[in-house]
Order: sequence, then structure tokens, then C-alpha cells
Amino acid sequence: MNEEITILGKQAKLAVRRLSQLSNPQRNAGLFAIAKMIRARKQDILAANAEDLHAGAEAGLSESLLDRLRLTSERLDDIANGVEKVASLPDPIGEEFDSRVLDNGLRLSKRRIPIGVIGVIYEARPNVTADIAALCIKSGNAAILRGGKEARRSNRALADVVAAGCADAGLPANSVQLVHSTDRNLVRELLRADDYIDMIIPRGGAGLHRFAVENATIPVITGGMGVVHIYVDKAADPAKVVPIVMNAKTQRPSVCNAMDTLLIHRDVAATILPVVAQSLTEAGVKLRCGPRAFDLLSGDFPVHPAEDEDFDTEFMALIAAIKVVDSLDDALDHIFEHSTKHSEAIITEDYAAATRFVNELDSAAVFVNASTRFNDGGQFGLGAEVAISTQRLHARGPMGLKELTTYKWVVLGSGQVRP
Amino acid sequence: MNEEITILGKQAKLAVRRLSQLSNPQRNAGLFAIAKMIRARKQDILAANAEDLHAGAEAGLSESLLDRLRLTSERLDDIANGVEKVASLPDPIGEEFDSRVLDNGLRLSKRRIPIGVIGVIYEARPNVTADIAALCIKSGNAAILRGGKEARRSNRALADVVAAGCADAGLPANSVQLVHSTDRNLVRELLRADDYIDMIIPRGGAGLHRFAVENATIPVITGGMGVVHIYVDKAADPAKVVPIVMNAKTQRPSVCNAMDTLLIHRDVAATILPVVAQSLTEAGVKLRCGPRAFDLLSGDFPVHPAEDEDFDTEFMALIAAIKVVDSLDDALDHIFEHSTKHSEAIITEDYAAATRFVNELDSAAVFVNASTRFNDGGQFGLGAEVAISTQRLHARGPMGLKELTTYKWVVLGSGQVRP
Repeated sequence: MNEEITILGKQAKLAVRRLSQLSNPQRNAGLFAIAKMIRARKQDILAANAEDLHAGAEAGLSESLLDRLRLTSERLDDIANGVEKVASLPDPIGEEFDSRVLDNGLRLSKRRIPIGVIGVIYEARPNVTADIAALCIKSGNAAILRGGKEARRSNRALADVVAAGCADAGLPANSVQLVHSTDRNLVRELLRADDYIDMIIPRGGAGLHRFAVENATIPVITGGMGVVHIYVDKAADPAKVVPIVMNAKTQRPSVCNAMDTLLIHRDVAATILPVVAQSLTEAGVKLRCGPRAFDLLSGDFPVHPAEDEDFDTEFMALIAAIKVVDSLDDALDHIFEHSTKHSEAIITEDYAAATRFVNELDSAAVFVNASTRFNDGGQFGLGAEVAISTQRLHARGPMGLKELTTYKWVVLGSGQVRP
Repeated sequence: MNEEITILGKQAKLAVRRLSQLSNPQRNAGLFAIAKMIRARKQDILAANAEDLHAGAEAGLSESLLDRLRLTSERLDDIANGVEKVASLPDPIGEEFDSRVLDNGLRLSKRRIPIGVIGVIYEARPNVTADIAALCIKSGNAAILRGGKEARRSNRALADVVAAGCADAGLPANSVQLVHSTDRNLVRELLRADDYIDMIIPRGGAGLHRFAVENATIPVITGGMGVVHIYVDKAADPAKVVPIVMNAKTQRPSVCNAMDTLLIHRDVAATILPVVAQSLTEAGVKLRCGPRAFDLLSGDFPVHPAEDEDFDTEFMALIAAIKVVDSLDDALDHIFEHSTKHSEAIITEDYAAATRFVNELDSAAVFVNASTRFNDGGQFGLGAEVAISTQRLHARGPMGLKELTTYKWVVLGSGQVRP
């Protein structure tokens, strides 16, 4: 095991033992101290960020990557406000549930406790450093963060501020630690540090997620990727179709809950599809159409024939795949074959169709007459979000503070032994 | 990917799509049909088992291994009764929870659904085949089972009976499938079949668990291993110590919730430890003592000095490590350093000591004045148990039917789009 990882791991284990015993007000005091420190040390953070931006520009990073990397005074205010907002959320720790008394008098409860040490591997956005720090501290978890090379000076400045804020408020300074080495092999070692780390959250593209799954001996939260479907049923209210499809496709096309594939029932394709295509085309969306959709639209719109892989693609861009289906069953079959189990929506006024869609699909979130863009921790009212899980264990969909907890069984007796 | 695994995986995916849509009475009908079939085809199963036993004896399996492998008419009745008992448990599927209405009128719920396809890798006990089949079918999951080579004929006979029972009751015959090949490399392939399998449960020793963690790309439920501590506090009721320690150590020493290490406060060691040692020694327990415990006991009992590794050993046998500690803090420090986070107990009448023990430890189950042997799905009232998890994600401690489920978010709207 790499020496830096071992040291960070041991320190994190010590930190979490103390952190997990602090009260909610004590943890909140840490968050307020961090927010205050972010505001007080703005100039240091911005100076470090300017160096990252300079190096990034020299290295030829695209303007959009530089923008993700960029911190400003306003963005730092937003980050500090975000940390304080996490403090205002309900305490996720300590709740007892599934309690029961056994016939022998033993009292059993599950008690919600922190998971332990959370490892987070992320890419260029330095705001993640403060976000994750706040969520982990609020939930009594320690964190080991491995940010992108491009943001290393910004991340270090932010991590120093987090450590200083923790120390100021009497929290362990090692509650949130940054991996300093930028050696890429370290990621692999981090993924195998199961003596020290209890859960890995990769935040990045499909490649990073796959790398984590392939190499980790620690449980990995996979997610953040979606081939997202909207099915326009034959009983769809035409007035709902354009607003929902446009919102799902164009409001923020680069995110995981944006629509990728539009399925439409053959009975309404001739009337509804041209109207949808008109709006999408005007918004700059490129349409990749299956044969029947192509026939319907190709005279009037600049559509392209869909390749097979288009129906398995998360476009992350103003592109949509379109397919006409014969029935709800066909739509369900298509979704079962192509979905990544993130978000799927049906537009229908038919009770039976809505019910079947919701009952039969097993994606992390299934919607009736609503935009898939709602699959988000903030929108769902969780107050914060650490990831959107598309795996099936532990948590699915938006993961907030509660999803950063586990439980232990507390068993109170008076001398009972097993018969 | 190995061809057999691919075929089994595709079949399991098809099976689970149907299975997950069946009602609780339909799934129960499958279980009753399986139980009936086990009783009806006893002779076939016993004949297959006799071949396994013969081959096992020829290969020099120990009598205890042969006994684990052995099926009898009575044991098959027990297995059939167990399948029917699972049918009688409450339906774990379909419950909606954490429901809320958002300000925009969207109605959100988490709905409990099957995990999907469960992969189980286990060793020589053929009863596991029927147990797991019943638990998976009851919870709407499909299963792919990989049993031990020694039990392959018995497992095949049982899996055939399960498939026939499913078919009889109108359930997919591929709901529960057995890997036929006994090629050991297949286990590695099974662990990497993440396109088809959603969760892996290894049932076996530490080596199998570590192999699964090292090689799997599928989430693995680790557990079933415990370095289990009992701490006798200075405020222990002496009358409770011997019954609890004896139950935890000697009732079934080969299981994971049996005590391994006894910690005792120095203030009561001189009075209580000899009494405990007397009972343990009479029951044939070998005592491996730290220096102070050795000094206290060595004149009167056949004790051995403990080696360092004794305090990190799950003995699975009539052996206990014993250590005198100076304080509750020392006991907690020892447990933090050596525990595998399975089960820990304190014996005390002191409220503050009991509270600190329960609050500060983070093992899957923490006990006050009760035997660690209660950490068991049946004892905890779960009705059944698929594993005892010592990991921190998804489920901890005994895993019953509910722990074989996940959830999806169901979002019901009337045209909402994200602002």
C-alpha cells in the first residue's frame, strides 16, 4: 500500500472515531467555521485558482473546462453559503428505527450511524471539495478526497481552509483530507485501501466509473450516467408533450437526467411528432430517427437516420434519438434493453398505461407526466446531493445525507442467553 | 465472458422481469410447489446425495464435512418446511415509504422492489440451495447459484426440483439457476458478470470472501466473520457473566457470532475471572491469556500465554483469548483495534458504561447484558437469513427478506417541468 494512502487512511480512521461522537451542533459549528474561513481566505483561494487557470490555459484546456475550474469571489460566496445550508439540514445521525422487543425481553433497534471513511474521486471542479466536505462532516463521516490534477492548487487551498475551519471549531483537522500526490497510479491504490475506506464515490465520466468498478475492493457507488427515455403514449395529452420533452432535452443537455431517447406510440406519431420535432429543431437539437420516425419527419426537418448505437448513447448534448413504437409493451421492451436505469418518463392520461409503466420498470426513478430533469437531490427535497446512484445496492437515485449513513443493531438485555 | 455464465445471466434477466411482477400469493404458490416437489422427489435427491457422499468419502473428506454434505429424509423434510416457512413471511415487496408532495405538486415515493439477480457462491452444504432459492423467490429476485464441487449432484437434484416447482406454479423455470460447470475459474467470471448479476453473496470462509472482494466488479455482501468481544465491566453483575460468556463461547463455537476475546476490567478480574475460567475449562475451552490474566489463572488452570495474533483470530473452536484491561476506554480501544465489526457485548449494571459502549462502537451489533449468539436473523425475528453482513453499505448484521430488496423513486406529475 502506498505510504501517503496509508497515512491518510490511519488519520481518517482516528478522525472518524471522534467525529462520529460529536453532536449535531458541534458538527454544525465546524461547518459554520469552514464557511467563515472560506470567506476570510478568499484571496488565498483565488490566488491558487489563478495558478490552476494559468496552467490550464497553457496546457490548452478548453474554455468550458476552464470555466468549470474557475473560482470567483461570487462562486466562493456560493460555496460558503452552500456549506451553511448543509448545516441547516436535519441531523441524519442517531435515529432509531425498526425497533422491536423480542419475547425474551431483548430490546432491538437499528440506529443510524455514519458510514465511516468516504473516498471521493472527482475531476476538475474545485467546488466539489467544499460540497463533499460539508456533506461528510454533517453526516459524521471522514473523507479522503482525490481531485483532478488541473485543480490541484485550488483543491489544496480549499482543503486547507476546511482543515483550519475544523480545527477552529474543535473538530478533528483530519476529518477531510486531500490526497496530495497527483500520481495517477494512486487512484488504483485508493480504490484498494479497504482497510481504511468504507465507500468510494467516483464523480466523473463513464470511464472513471468503470475504472473504479474494475479496480476497487471497496464498495463503489456507481451512477451519474443515464440513457434516459421519455415515452409518449397514445393517450398522451398533446399539450404536455412539448413542455416536458423540451425541458428534459434542452434545459441542461450536458447532465445525466437529460432525455436521450424519445419513444412515441404509432397512433399519435403523425400528429405529435412533427410538433415536437419543430420545437426541438428550433432549439438546435439534432434528431436521429428510427425508420418510421425518419419517414414522418424527413420531408420537413433536417433529421438523420439513427444508427443502432444511438439508442444506447447518453448524448450529453443537443442530440436526441427518436423511435416510433407499436405499443406500450414495445416501449417497455425497448427501455429494458437500452436503459441504464437512471430515469424514465411516460406521458399519458391513461391510468392503466401509467400504472404499468411505473410498476414494470425498475429504473432508479420513473416519472408520469413530469420531466426527467427532476431526478436530482435538490429537486427531490433532499437538501443536498452527493451523487445520483444507478446501482441497486444501498441507495438509488439522488443520494443526500441519509444515504451517507448506515446502521448498527443495538441490543439491550438483562442477561439473556440463546436457548 | 464464459458462455455458460452469459446464458444463465440472460435467462436470469428475463426471469426476474416476470418474477418481479408476480403477486405475493403467486410467489408463495411457487414456494409451496417447491416444498411439495422436494417431498415428492426425496428418493431422487437422496440418491444424488448418496453419490456425493460416496465420492466425498473416496476423496477423504472429514466426517464433519461429510455430515454437512449429508441429506436424510428428515433433513429434506426440514428443508421443505423451511421453504414453506419463508412463504408465510410478510411480503417484502411493494411498500412505499419516504413519500412526500413537492410544492409543485409532484408526488414522490420510494417503492421497495427486488434487487434483481442475486449471485450466491457457497460451499458444501446443499440445504443452502433450497434456502436461498426460497428467499430469492419470496423477494422477487432471480438467483444464480454456484455450489461446492463436493455437493454438485445433490445441488443439481435440488435445483431441478426448484425449477420444476417453479414451472408447476407458473413461475419462470429460470428463477433459480445452478452453474453446472465445476471449473474453478468460473467463480472469477461469475464475480465479473456485472451485466447480469446485481449482488454477490459469498457464503463460506474468509478466503472465499476475500477472493470475492478482490475479483468482483459486482457489489459483494461481505460478512459472516467475526472476532467477537465480550467486555466484563467493573460494574458487571457477577451472576450474568458466566451464563453469557458460556453461551457465547460454547453453545456453537464454530459460528461467526461466537465469542473470541474476553476483556475484563482489572477491578473485578481477581474475583470473576477464576469463576469464568473454571466453567470454560470444564467445557473444554482452551484459554489464551494476556500477561495479567495469565498471572491470575496460571496456578489453577491449564492456560496458555496469548500470542499477539490470538487477539485478531476468529477461533471457530473451543478457544478463547482473555485480556485484563484497565478501564472501559482500554476495552473500547482494544475493540476498535481488533474487531471485525461483527458483534460486541458489554456486561455491566452501570448506565454510563453501557451507554458509552453502545454509542461509541460501530460494529454491526452491539449488546448490553446479552449473548452475542443472538446476532442471527432467526433470533432477531427476521424470519430468515441470507447472510450476516459485516460491511457498512446496504445492510448490516442479519440480512432477511427486506435486505434482498432495493427501491425505485416513483414520481407522479401532471405536466411539471423543472424551472
